[in-house]
Amino acid sequence: MAGSSTHLYSPGLVGVIATESSVSNINGERGILSYRGYSIEELAKKSTFEETSYLLLFGELPTSEQLKIFTSSISNYRQLPSELISILKALPKETKPMDVLQMAVSSLGTFYDLEVSPEKVKGKKYDKDYFMNTSATLIGSLGSLVAAWHRIRNGHEPISSLTDEAYAKNFLHMLGAEDITPLMTRIMDATLVLHGEHTINASTFTAMVTSSTLANASQVVASAIGSLSGPLHGGANEKVIAMLEKINSKDDIRPWLDDTLKAKNVVWGMGHREYSVKDPRANILTDMVQELFDERDGGVTDIFEKAIELEKACEEKLAHKGVYPNVDFYSGILYKEMDIPTDIFTPIFAMSRVAGWLAHWIEQIQDNKIFRPTQNYVGSDDREYINIDDR
Amino acid sequence: MAGSSTHLYSPGLVGVIATESSVSNINGERGILSYRGYSIEELAKKSTFEETSYLLLFGELPTSEQLKIFTSSISNYRQLPSELISILKALPKETKPMDVLQMAVSSLGTFYDLEVSPEKVKGKKYDKDYFMNTSATLIGSLGSLVAAWHRIRNGHEPISSLTDEAYAKNFLHMLGAEDITPLMTRIMDATLVLHGEHTINASTFTAMVTSSTLANASQVVASAIGSLSGPLHGGANEKVIAMLEKINSKDDIRPWLDDTLKAKNVVWGMGHREYSVKDPRANILTDMVQELFDERDGGVTDIFEKAIELEKACEEKLAHKGVYPNVDFYSGILYKEMDIPTDIFTPIFAMSRVAGWLAHWIEQIQDNKIFRPTQNYVGSDDREYINIDDR
Repeated sequence: MAGSSTHLYSPGLVGVIATESSVSNINGERGILSYRGYSIEELAKKSTFEETSYLLLFGELPTSEQLKIFTSSISNYRQLPSELISILKALPKETKPMDVLQMAVSSLGTFYDLEVSPEKVKGKKYDKDYFMNTSATLIGSLGSLVAAWHRIRNGHEPISSLTDEAYAKNFLHMLGAEDITPLMTRIMDATLVLHGEHTINASTFTAMVTSSTLANASQVVASAIGSLSGPLHGGANEKVIAMLEKINSKDDIRPWLDDTLKAKNVVWGMGHREYSVKDPRANILTDMVQELFDERDGGVTDIFEKAIELEKACEEKLAHKGVYPNVDFYSGILYKEMDIPTDIFTPIFAMSRVAGWLAHWIEQIQDNKIFRPTQNYVGSDDREYINIDDR
Repeated sequence: MAGSSTHLYSPGLVGVIATESSVSNINGERGILSYRGYSIEELAKKSTFEETSYLLLFGELPTSEQLKIFTSSISNYRQLPSELISILKALPKETKPMDVLQMAVSSLGTFYDLEVSPEKVKGKKYDKDYFMNTSATLIGSLGSLVAAWHRIRNGHEPISSLTDEAYAKNFLHMLGAEDITPLMTRIMDATLVLHGEHTINASTFTAMVTSSTLANASQVVASAIGSLSGPLHGGANEKVIAMLEKINSKDDIRPWLDDTLKAKNVVWGMGHREYSVKDPRANILTDMVQELFDERDGGVTDIFEKAIELEKACEEKLAHKGVYPNVDFYSGILYKEMDIPTDIFTPIFAMSRVAGWLAHWIEQIQDNKIFRPTQNYVGSDDREYINIDDR
């Protein structure tokens, strides 16, 4: 229902309705996250990143024909234009992966036609092919950009995309992973599904505001990447690893946790502001942690062992307070165990969340009003200019 | 005053207070725009872009010593790193100037230390040197990026920055302008002052939301550039020129206007949603249009003559309805007459507005709460996953 709001100011717009949306929903008390009405547990177990992206974008699970077309379109865009590879090679090797990603995405409008035009959007009767093609361009490009930059900064040539493999497996391949097991592919795919969308957080909101000016989809996504790059937003799973790396050994976990809780310091990867019960996305990953442990027959890293010990200790000490490990805790340790470098965890988050950003882009521009909130002006009035020599 | 809002939904957040701010203020009924309490008329006549940027960022007009330091810092950053020039050269020549700008700004964190850290921000007792240096980096870089790209895309080498010249004159120089008169410099400087800030529009709001995640200033500005690139936001002065180019001659103006008004089509550059009287920024430029006409002794382009004729016709036919030419009308024709290509009008807008974006960045992170509004969920509930063969 539309109407005017009161003139009260809520910092961060907490509690303020910024949109009507049918993309995803959270029930924090019941621990439910759903995409288009489907629970995240079902999707993570039964769907794939490509299928879930289609669902997020268009509201319905695709038929096998629709999925085939969409998947093959994404697959086409996984091969990056050679000029774009040259640009990546021209960057200083120490450029941060999120800066590279924002930069490369900004340039996509050069290589592909991503312009928003009235003919393509047509109000609520939108041109689905246009949205599908644009989304496939962005989704296909992002994974390859993350992988290509990781190769280039280490002095290697980017690895070509495997045309016939699914997105998750191909991404691991392009990163340079060897001996990719079906479980590793499944873990990668599930984490991509789990991070695809999460209602209106700061990066999604950035995407919506940028969309409302009818900027190109590449600029919408680049803006959202800027927002996700902030340490208060993305990056929580990177902090989990940094925290675990500072603890000497598995045996030091419990004393460390006691000290940390006593000093009221943060235990990264624990609790989530949206959920008062266990983060439903964490539940799914818990089982995968065990499976990966079993597959490696105990041959896991020190970090992994510390994480499992910390998880147990936290469940004992914090679960009665409603504080549980969240999705970042598990995704961090799973990625680390699969030898993915910590500083590309947030770019991988972006690779996945681009599906949600684009779903909100499609929703926004079909029923658009440019964002122009107001302010409480609390500054000076009517000052007179004083010449510089008299100041 | 903080408080919770009602649960009414206002599309585009129109009327919703998104921040407390002391950067700028608009009184649309009285036709007043002020930066930090100083009227835009005074600033455009008496101040410079560098001084006005300092005022926007820090709230006070600088002493001559403060201005000297700030100006010299901006001037240092006008010389782009050679690696960045190489990246620009690697881009396809037809890349849109706004895409190039977003892309290049995304990369600035590679060349300069722009990281936000708690030590630098320190709540409300911020480190002014940090904010000053970061702002000088962005302000200094933006103009040179716009100019360098314009040179490179036309197959020319970028022109080096003139260390001792003010920002406006140096920009015209780097663009390749010859015979730069004092009036041309003054026009460039005044339009930069006039476009520096305009309360909470979509790009500024994008900058605020991105800032709230504590992303780097380069990513904040890159996000805002994405938002400004949308045709509903930046670009109005480009449309003024495109409109004038379609009209054959000065003599066709009045019949064209009659037809356009009759058909209820848009006359670009007329009216402004924030002002019910004449846009105060337009007043200042009106005089400059006349001065430029006089300086050129009537030797002006066809576009310029059509614009002056259209302005007169609109004043006659529309002023009684409270519709006047706005800032975009005049800045467009002034830029055009100074031989600035139409497709860099919006990048020049960004060069100027970066001062406002950074002022809001400084304001936001000193009293920060991450933006996380809520949504009205209007989608499906509790759907059960159906296997693909059964769909």
